[in-house]
Amino acid sequence: MKSAENRYDVAEPKSASNDRFVLSKGHAAPILYAAWAEAGLFPVSELQKLRKLDSDLEGHPTPRLNFIDVATGSLGQGLSVACGMAYVGKNLDKAPYRTYCLMGDGESMEGNVWEAMTFAGFYKLDNLCAIIDVNRLGQSDPTPLQHDMEQYKNRVESFGFHGIVVDGHDINELVKAFDEAANTKGKPTCILAKTFKGHDFPEIADLMNWHGKALGDKSASVVEHLKGLLQNASAPNPKIEGPSGAAPDVSIKDVKLSSPPNYKLGDALATRQAYGTALAKVCENNPRVIALDGDMKNSTFSQNVTKQFPERYIECFICEQNLVGVGIGAACRDRTVAFVSTFACFLTRAFDNFRMGVISQTNINVAGSHCGVSIGEDGPSQMALEDLAMFRTLPGATVFYPSDAVATERAVELAANTKGITFIRLSRPATTIVYANDEVFEIGKAKVVKQSDSDKVLVVAAGVTLDEAVKAAKNLEASGVNVRVLDPFTVKPLDAEGVIKNALECGGRIVTVEDHYPEGGIGSAVADVVSGRRDIVLKKLCVQEVPRSGPPKILIEKYGIGADSIVKAVNEIKDA
Amino acid sequence: MKSAENRYDVAEPKSASNDRFVLSKGHAAPILYAAWAEAGLFPVSELQKLRKLDSDLEGHPTPRLNFIDVATGSLGQGLSVACGMAYVGKNLDKAPYRTYCLMGDGESMEGNVWEAMTFAGFYKLDNLCAIIDVNRLGQSDPTPLQHDMEQYKNRVESFGFHGIVVDGHDINELVKAFDEAANTKGKPTCILAKTFKGHDFPEIADLMNWHGKALGDKSASVVEHLKGLLQNASAPNPKIEGPSGAAPDVSIKDVKLSSPPNYKLGDALATRQAYGTALAKVCENNPRVIALDGDMKNSTFSQNVTKQFPERYIECFICEQNLVGVGIGAACRDRTVAFVSTFACFLTRAFDNFRMGVISQTNINVAGSHCGVSIGEDGPSQMALEDLAMFRTLPGATVFYPSDAVATERAVELAANTKGITFIRLSRPATTIVYANDEVFEIGKAKVVKQSDSDKVLVVAAGVTLDEAVKAAKNLEASGVNVRVLDPFTVKPLDAEGVIKNALECGGRIVTVEDHYPEGGIGSAVADVVSGRRDIVLKKLCVQEVPRSGPPKILIEKYGIGADSIVKAVNEIKDA
Repeated sequence: MKSAENRYDVAEPKSASNDRFVLSKGHAAPILYAAWAEAGLFPVSELQKLRKLDSDLEGHPTPRLNFIDVATGSLGQGLSVACGMAYVGKNLDKAPYRTYCLMGDGESMEGNVWEAMTFAGFYKLDNLCAIIDVNRLGQSDPTPLQHDMEQYKNRVESFGFHGIVVDGHDINELVKAFDEAANTKGKPTCILAKTFKGHDFPEIADLMNWHGKALGDKSASVVEHLKGLLQNASAPNPKIEGPSGAAPDVSIKDVKLSSPPNYKLGDALATRQAYGTALAKVCENNPRVIALDGDMKNSTFSQNVTKQFPERYIECFICEQNLVGVGIGAACRDRTVAFVSTFACFLTRAFDNFRMGVISQTNINVAGSHCGVSIGEDGPSQMALEDLAMFRTLPGATVFYPSDAVATERAVELAANTKGITFIRLSRPATTIVYANDEVFEIGKAKVVKQSDSDKVLVVAAGVTLDEAVKAAKNLEASGVNVRVLDPFTVKPLDAEGVIKNALECGGRIVTVEDHYPEGGIGSAVADVVSGRRDIVLKKLCVQEVPRSGPPKILIEKYGIGADSIVKAVNEIKDA
Repeated sequence: MKSAENRYDVAEPKSASNDRFVLSKGHAAPILYAAWAEAGLFPVSELQKLRKLDSDLEGHPTPRLNFIDVATGSLGQGLSVACGMAYVGKNLDKAPYRTYCLMGDGESMEGNVWEAMTFAGFYKLDNLCAIIDVNRLGQSDPTPLQHDMEQYKNRVESFGFHGIVVDGHDINELVKAFDEAANTKGKPTCILAKTFKGHDFPEIADLMNWHGKALGDKSASVVEHLKGLLQNASAPNPKIEGPSGAAPDVSIKDVKLSSPPNYKLGDALATRQAYGTALAKVCENNPRVIALDGDMKNSTFSQNVTKQFPERYIECFICEQNLVGVGIGAACRDRTVAFVSTFACFLTRAFDNFRMGVISQTNINVAGSHCGVSIGEDGPSQMALEDLAMFRTLPGATVFYPSDAVATERAVELAANTKGITFIRLSRPATTIVYANDEVFEIGKAKVVKQSDSDKVLVVAAGVTLDEAVKAAKNLEASGVNVRVLDPFTVKPLDAEGVIKNALECGGRIVTVEDHYPEGGIGSAVADVVSGRRDIVLKKLCVQEVPRSGPPKILIEKYGIGADSIVKAVNEIKDA
């Protein structure tokens, strides 16, 4: 029978061969810190620094601590991350480490949890063990199910888990349940631990209004009471077993396109299509590159991976929070290079997962297709017009907005080698190939696509609007007005130096044009680098209202981001 | 026995007394449009304009059509909205109208759906009937459960629904199921309709790769085949019964604070606390004001409503997507003025609900507390540092950032009377009362808090940073440098005129300072109104990295948004 203990090399908490533990109910951080101190990772005396500025023992766990894989504290996200770890353990590492995730009962109502439950059940992740601490009390009210353990069991079983109800205060029952979980094949286990909040704390146990509160003047008496309950207080700590098997050595470094881009200048192709091509190429180059999608693979072209490398494609169905969470989990401990894709607008559902991903120092690549009004007839619900704003808020994130197929392939290659969260914004319609196949791209380096010695305005554009800008530039040229066209390639970091230098060469006049709402996109990024200067002025073209269904080209002009609008804006600003 | 038919006054689709129908699987729009045409609302010939620019029959439904309450097309959100409608129908309107929501099976995996299921089950919404169209096929793959109808039934029953499995192609079975739903008391019903995608379409039915595709050259033969199946084709359309009872007349106009703010200049109080006070006051003034929270009511102070008006507080537990969805539903057809609150950082989970809310022309008020590093020891997972960026992207939204208790009470009052989505950003620590109780506030009108005739720099600040700015101004004054301090009150719309006028009076120099990340906040809003001018320069102070746990005042200075940082920035820019 398989033993239930967590298996760790305590001295090396991030060893790829260790079991994983995700404390999804991050507010229980103090007990996790205490457990690692008791296990010998750091002195127990350090615990006194809890929540102090000079300590990494923060209010909620973050990977500033070497025994934490992902930050928690925004509830309901941990199980998705654990799913990603368990999926990789079972299907890619094929190693014996197990993954545990502890959740609260209030937390278990988060939709993200049930997306993860669907995933774990469908993929039969029997190396995953979820635990729900059913303590009956939320922060401000009892939870809906209170202590209805049977209904909890029905829920998890209907999502494909093996459910085990235990008295969460009974160590023997818990050990037995963990044993049972480890020996249950073909499905994940969820241990439903009936507990009482503040159990054995006199005048506190099972009462509301103690959530997140320190004990104050009750501390001494409670500690005294607890000491009285200790059995074998002088016995040595139990020994922690090391891993029962090793995870394979892998490298996620120096990922390359297996062959260079192969397009013809002047042809047209959708960047989402080039994304699929590039994704298959980086998969070909490195066996640890994986792709995940949310039932959109035939639109985002991540399906290209399913054809060549089916074992490295993870279908996450229509569950965007879990899609991102699984990607974050799969990338933990540098096990994989994960590329997550769906329509860019639906990525807004995972904003909190990205927010926590940054705190988690996560390393994933995200591709969002179908940005902007240029998707056309499907209408505003399917148009991403705030995605640049969202991803730009993430500290340390890299935001690619490739304008043609060549740039897209290089964006994928660069993303694969860039730490942190990267986002690649992809368009639905075909855009003109403007770069040679051997063009070299760098993060934070813009490209000048058109210029002359007498440019009066710098037009900054990307994706579908780059085509419009080039068209406008030609029209303007015919009327005797030269403009320079700049493609930023990355919107974060923006090439501040390039923008400023080119703007000054154009008389300090910039027009930005983007298939995005006014706030937070290319125009805002440019404003951020020029608003401190008196020698540069900026005019922004962008989508100013909720768009309608219609043909892409007509929508682009109707919403003021087409060639005609650019010509008009240039003429308005050219003498400013 | 209660009859199952939908009850509508067809000529007045938005009548408050009608049944509600939410097509959560918005991509099925054509069939909904056809049904309303058949019911006589508009000519059948209009259907030929589907997805045309000059028609409101868009690719996915929006309330540009008078028979649509909320836009759909981003999956999994409809049931939350339906929950809000049903909750109001049962508990506030106490009217006989019923609410129906049709979802897809692929869609049913969205976590948002299970948050809504928890809600409907807990509140025993027996006037709600969900339908899941289990057609086995997603866009790019079969769904995980395919046609496992029993497992679907187990799922919905474990969430408190009465589950009924039917052959979705059998009208008689469907009618019987709707009857059963209408007569089931004490719990909501979920009809699980087993169907085949493209049923009765030869060579298309039950096959992959037909999602979202037009029939092309198969059209004629399919239509011919379907015509052959029609029974009683010449029979008149069945009559649609009108509502069986009237919803009460209500007014949500001219909501006022029941008494003016009552604070003392120079005292300090957290704006979140003033929010609770104001919320109770507007509830006192209008019986249709309601409050919703996600188990944070003792932190956001929405708990003030539970004390005085328990019947108008809806606890939504830790389910932020559903919290917002229920708010949107409750506000439909002007039934209520809904105030939704939780920690601002957790509102990022509902970004897609807000995005769709805008397309839905929804009318809700959102309050987000605990913004920024000033929350202190709980650490970065609980700090909202991207909320202004998120809400600013929403077309037509109003973003309040009140700096003291007086401004907060007026923000609540203004929000209650402002159409669209409003957001009120609230702080955890106490901030100084700087406004008299009779100060008049307007949307888009900034307040000058400190000024002189010789100001060299305009400092724009809000919330905790307004206190810091005033302190910095006093320190600077002592060293002979006068600065003007401006409180924007609303960040969207920003008082462009006020900012520009005051900036020009300060030599065209602005410093913005905010408890927010660099992108999308106050600094960006100010940049947007000044980046087109050569006579104004801007320097932004904001939080530039992922913060740590620590005491609020120390974090404010450590992350560069405290009085010392402001003094430094002013000295750097004062001669620019």
